[in-house]
Amino acid sequence: MQLTHRSLVYARANQSRFLAELEEFVSFPSVSAQPERANDLKRCAEWLAKHLRGLGLDQVRVIQTRGHPLVYAEWRHAPQRPTMLVYGHYDVQPPDPLDAWMSPPFEPIVRGNDLYSRGASDDKGQMFVHLKALEAYLKTDGVLPVNVKCLFEGEEEIGSPNLMSFLASNKRTLSADFAVVSDMPIPSPVRPAITYALRGALSAEMDITGPQHDLHSGIFGGAVHNPLEALCGILAGLAGTDGRVSIPGFYDCVREGTAAERRYMAQFGPTDEQILQNAAAKEPWGEFGYSLYERSTLRPALSINGISGGYSGVGGKAVIPCRASAKVSFRLVPDQDPHEIDCLFRRHVAALTPPTVCAKIRTNFGANPVVIDIAHPPIRAAAVSYQKGFGAPPVFLRSGGSIPIVNTFEKTLAIPTVLMGFALPNDGMHTPNEKFHLPNFYRGITTSIWLLSELALQQGIKHGANNTSGRDLPQGL
Amino acid sequence: MQLTHRSLVYARANQSRFLAELEEFVSFPSVSAQPERANDLKRCAEWLAKHLRGLGLDQVRVIQTRGHPLVYAEWRHAPQRPTMLVYGHYDVQPPDPLDAWMSPPFEPIVRGNDLYSRGASDDKGQMFVHLKALEAYLKTDGVLPVNVKCLFEGEEEIGSPNLMSFLASNKRTLSADFAVVSDMPIPSPVRPAITYALRGALSAEMDITGPQHDLHSGIFGGAVHNPLEALCGILAGLAGTDGRVSIPGFYDCVREGTAAERRYMAQFGPTDEQILQNAAAKEPWGEFGYSLYERSTLRPALSINGISGGYSGVGGKAVIPCRASAKVSFRLVPDQDPHEIDCLFRRHVAALTPPTVCAKIRTNFGANPVVIDIAHPPIRAAAVSYQKGFGAPPVFLRSGGSIPIVNTFEKTLAIPTVLMGFALPNDGMHTPNEKFHLPNFYRGITTSIWLLSELALQQGIKHGANNTSGRDLPQGL
Repeated sequence: MQLTHRSLVYARANQSRFLAELEEFVSFPSVSAQPERANDLKRCAEWLAKHLRGLGLDQVRVIQTRGHPLVYAEWRHAPQRPTMLVYGHYDVQPPDPLDAWMSPPFEPIVRGNDLYSRGASDDKGQMFVHLKALEAYLKTDGVLPVNVKCLFEGEEEIGSPNLMSFLASNKRTLSADFAVVSDMPIPSPVRPAITYALRGALSAEMDITGPQHDLHSGIFGGAVHNPLEALCGILAGLAGTDGRVSIPGFYDCVREGTAAERRYMAQFGPTDEQILQNAAAKEPWGEFGYSLYERSTLRPALSINGISGGYSGVGGKAVIPCRASAKVSFRLVPDQDPHEIDCLFRRHVAALTPPTVCAKIRTNFGANPVVIDIAHPPIRAAAVSYQKGFGAPPVFLRSGGSIPIVNTFEKTLAIPTVLMGFALPNDGMHTPNEKFHLPNFYRGITTSIWLLSELALQQGIKHGANNTSGRDLPQGL
Repeated sequence: MQLTHRSLVYARANQSRFLAELEEFVSFPSVSAQPERANDLKRCAEWLAKHLRGLGLDQVRVIQTRGHPLVYAEWRHAPQRPTMLVYGHYDVQPPDPLDAWMSPPFEPIVRGNDLYSRGASDDKGQMFVHLKALEAYLKTDGVLPVNVKCLFEGEEEIGSPNLMSFLASNKRTLSADFAVVSDMPIPSPVRPAITYALRGALSAEMDITGPQHDLHSGIFGGAVHNPLEALCGILAGLAGTDGRVSIPGFYDCVREGTAAERRYMAQFGPTDEQILQNAAAKEPWGEFGYSLYERSTLRPALSINGISGGYSGVGGKAVIPCRASAKVSFRLVPDQDPHEIDCLFRRHVAALTPPTVCAKIRTNFGANPVVIDIAHPPIRAAAVSYQKGFGAPPVFLRSGGSIPIVNTFEKTLAIPTVLMGFALPNDGMHTPNEKFHLPNFYRGITTSIWLLSELALQQGIKHGANNTSGRDLPQGL
């Protein structure tokens, strides 16, 4: 424990430098969805690789892909000890709408106890937590309690299109006993959480085209079908006003939550009031018979993420636009399959599309839903380290979000993933004024330092076995 | 007729200079809907005033309003002769979407027989026709056959918010026997037309707000109502898939066309095929029981002119936007009243809006529908001059568009309006690649020269009387 103690002292003494480094990291506008940002992602990856070398990690590489590069590093000098694969992503969501930001999205600024910037919590800040824990060990004693591999990607926010094939062809390099991912919120600064379920996703775009060019709505209004009106009709036909998806077959494979799990969720999960407060929304909404927590995690959902078409400037414009577009995404739960849902969605849109317009769908990406068995030993190590880092035991939560790689870790590398977040529900992941709560940054580093030492102590991690060490954790999840 | 002959020769000899002047006129980006263009409108108005002075008109003035300025000029040296009020507008529609233009919208260019530019036909080119006819008389004989007043505004495309009050307080200055407006298409370069009916309009914007800020659609999808989804539901609830408006009471005051008029429309109006061709649309659409010409002129219509909300950049973004907006406009027919329709619309939207979101409506402007009695003597003069200018008699058409001022001329100045267009159906008024067909520009000038001399000959114009001189025109319209 001497090892851990010196690392903790080091981490505390270097907090302000850690913050300065994180500010540098988040200032890269690494928006993976925007092709014109490709060079910013490249620069960010190079900065990250240089940083990893500075920590004392080995084999540090920027790995080119067909898209944005991966960054890899490792430290493998603890024979007989488990190997942890740290995954994170250095790419960020688009900052739009820009005018909703109180300060520019890529000019990080500390206000109160929070660091404001796109990527502050999703995911640069949370992945940085683990790097600083590694540094704390390596700069004090020069060794880590366990073996570590780091894999950071630049395409998480666009569905990791190149990561899966990289994993499949580099199984040996990436072999580990488990993965750890910190890319989600916990309920509060004094209540950490381990996420044991993620929703899957299907992201698509729909283009409706009508006349060959825009038309004067006075001269042609009433005689030519307006693509915007057709689009509204199609979108309104995808779900009922309660949000229940109207696509035939959509719910066929949805697994209902067990009574035990729903009880645990009701007891330990966020209340409707808390969710509304986190959302800054006044009224609950959604599928009858489920709590808001269940609606946003245990149940699938459809979201229209954007619509564009026609005139959006100041004032009016008497136009029938020749096209209209929508961005649509589904969140999926076990045992929904993104490919099957994509087929059902396309078939339903085709049925809803009148002969006066043409509908085209492009699928951006799909991700499988995931449920992780919390009896895995590394989960127990994470629970103990949270207790030490935050002074409270974690609750076990479902998340409504999607992290496509977790399913791949399970299927391709045959390892479980520990999903331990450090962000807060009001950190604004994906929204303007995204922030990271700095006390969580520092407590996160402490927690990660404890995690490394706990992993060295826990039995049964090395072979990925489920043993009874997790039996003091909640049952039936 | 000597007078007319010399003017015609002058007009023919000066065609290329006329074109060069029109190119200068359309190069002002006088987009009235965009506040940042205010100075461009001011510069355009000053250019126009200077041009009117150069023609030899009197009392030329740029008149400030609470919005964009008016330009006035007159020539009143023909006692006992009728007075014609020429109305036009120097403001233009927004050029969006910019990337659909083959050449920049405010850099006029001649391709083939067409001048391409925003405003080329709507309305700078068509109003310029009359100015060049006045010039042809004034620069040859130094006098006009009739008295003329010119009134050009800079707010037609935003509903003429300041023109009505100006008219009401300047009735004496503007007193005339009739008005002429050239701001609409004719069927073809060899088939002129007089428009005897215009639809009214109601333009509004709708904002739907939900949560206080954008949300992550993974974390909250299914539990918080998405304003975009609410908007689609509301918009889909405004009209059926056939375009028939679903607002209760909307059709209560709609006057059906008479059997005689519908027969004339079927015989002389555009066919369904022609309208589809003009629209570059493949399929007919709209209210059952009416031809496309009737649907777009005799029947009211609803158009969604724009929707915006959420992410519209490249790729996807997992967001529930906090707001969504739509621009909506109605085209109205006798005896629909814009104020009443506005009330019905607001009431219906309120009924369609779920308690989970908030809907706000802003009314941009309303315009009354107009039907003009074609027995008015100036209409006959226009018909004769068209025959001489285009070598063919005009057909009488309904237009689906709206020109708010025409109703005001009738109600406030108690004068009829001659609606004689020079644009073509494919000139792209309000759309990208707007153009003006140059043979129509030159034939228009010839027609306007003949109109001035015909007006001096026609009986009964001076006192605005309907007499029997129009009885050889179609009956029952």
